[in-house]
Amino acid sequence: MTNKKEIIAAIIIIGNEVLSGRTKDLNTSTLSIWLNSIGISVQEVRVIPDIKKVIVNTVNELRDNFNYVFTTGGIGPTHDDITAESISEAFSLEYGFHKEAFSILEKYYEPGEFNEGRQKMAKMPTTAKLILNPSSGAPGFYVKNVFCLPGVPSILKSMIGGLNNVLIGGDPILSKTINLRTYESEIAKSLTNVQDSNKDVEIGSYPFFRQGKLGVSIVLRSVDPIKIDKCNSQILEFVKEKNIEVVEIY
Amino acid sequence: MTNKKEIIAAIIIIGNEVLSGRTKDLNTSTLSIWLNSIGISVQEVRVIPDIKKVIVNTVNELRDNFNYVFTTGGIGPTHDDITAESISEAFSLEYGFHKEAFSILEKYYEPGEFNEGRQKMAKMPTTAKLILNPSSGAPGFYVKNVFCLPGVPSILKSMIGGLNNVLIGGDPILSKTINLRTYESEIAKSLTNVQDSNKDVEIGSYPFFRQGKLGVSIVLRSVDPIKIDKCNSQILEFVKEKNIEVVEIY
Repeated sequence: MTNKKEIIAAIIIIGNEVLSGRTKDLNTSTLSIWLNSIGISVQEVRVIPDIKKVIVNTVNELRDNFNYVFTTGGIGPTHDDITAESISEAFSLEYGFHKEAFSILEKYYEPGEFNEGRQKMAKMPTTAKLILNPSSGAPGFYVKNVFCLPGVPSILKSMIGGLNNVLIGGDPILSKTINLRTYESEIAKSLTNVQDSNKDVEIGSYPFFRQGKLGVSIVLRSVDPIKIDKCNSQILEFVKEKNIEVVEIY
Repeated sequence: MTNKKEIIAAIIIIGNEVLSGRTKDLNTSTLSIWLNSIGISVQEVRVIPDIKKVIVNTVNELRDNFNYVFTTGGIGPTHDDITAESISEAFSLEYGFHKEAFSILEKYYEPGEFNEGRQKMAKMPTTAKLILNPSSGAPGFYVKNVFCLPGVPSILKSMIGGLNNVLIGGDPILSKTINLRTYESEIAKSLTNVQDSNKDVEIGSYPFFRQGKLGVSIVLRSVDPIKIDKCNSQILEFVKEKNIEVVEIY
């Protein structure tokens, strides 16, 4: 199933609010869809607490095993925002005011409003490269292959475009979805046969309930559109034989 | 911050559909809120692909380090449902038809409808204990401290109540939220002081945007309601001093 040239990424969601169930993580979906579009496959996500030792260990484990690591959360002004400090420790880099970040934030706020809390957002590994923030001033940053983004979904979303020229991806990962009016158990055997003869295409099967009706989404994923089409044809063949209704294909 | 008697859990979300960004994970929130209510604290979540080796390694790593591990997804009838097989391998247990599960499913379906695909849902570690499914027949199961639940959020939700008498938790983890009309940077220093003098309470600070207005949610979490109240009072004290509007407390 794995593409040989595959560029892989991991995401680290830093935040007690996700672990407590208070907040649902939306950033994984945003990051994954964007990364797939530039040929980077997300292979692991971890949600971890706001504890420095855990952040340092997780970052150090994952940055060795993935081409890219993205963290979200913990770069704000309050006491529970410890990502920048933790990244400094993970890379054994000086944690302090980042000149360019300080200057960006100083200009962003009205005179007299650049208080101690806001200044904290300029503290990070002093040699980090910045990820500019078109929404709310405070930049993210990256060190080597570790990219640190904020936790607020709308702000994160506004910042990732700036990384398109920094990341080196592969071929975009394409997908096709076939929605059928059937049960998974009705098609399980035929779908296994299609997967067995198309090892390079990732085939997922997901039951859905919509407008009171049951169905199954078959999702085909690959970097090769020809392979996806071949799979799609084989699926439509058994679907026709079994007289199953195709709801939509997209 | 850590309660000495704390009972900790990890969640493993098994599913390419979450890693690809197609599906947003809702099960972490459901599980965490329920586990907190019975005194179990979720300390890590991992989202991993439908790859047997990854599932086996992740389960074996986490089951040694947490009191409880919950997996979601991969227990359906299709080729990409490999959780039951992987758990058997992780525990070196026989994978085959589970007598009780087979009998439940046989009764659930109409005569003649219990086909090969559906029979697969009765395959698991043959000595596993079952987690009954009031929604759609197919049971989950558990082996020692590893609990395997389905990925469909509504079905998962209907099954967890059955585990209340199986899991041994601690004191329920309580929380209080104070919503303020302010910026994080305005209260960062005062909040740090409160955290420093209340080490046993987990204090989180989260900006929010609602009806076009900015605000900050302060979330206090502890097993001890008296400690939460003490923190709450100290926060309301500096909030009053700073003349900050309290939007709501719950």
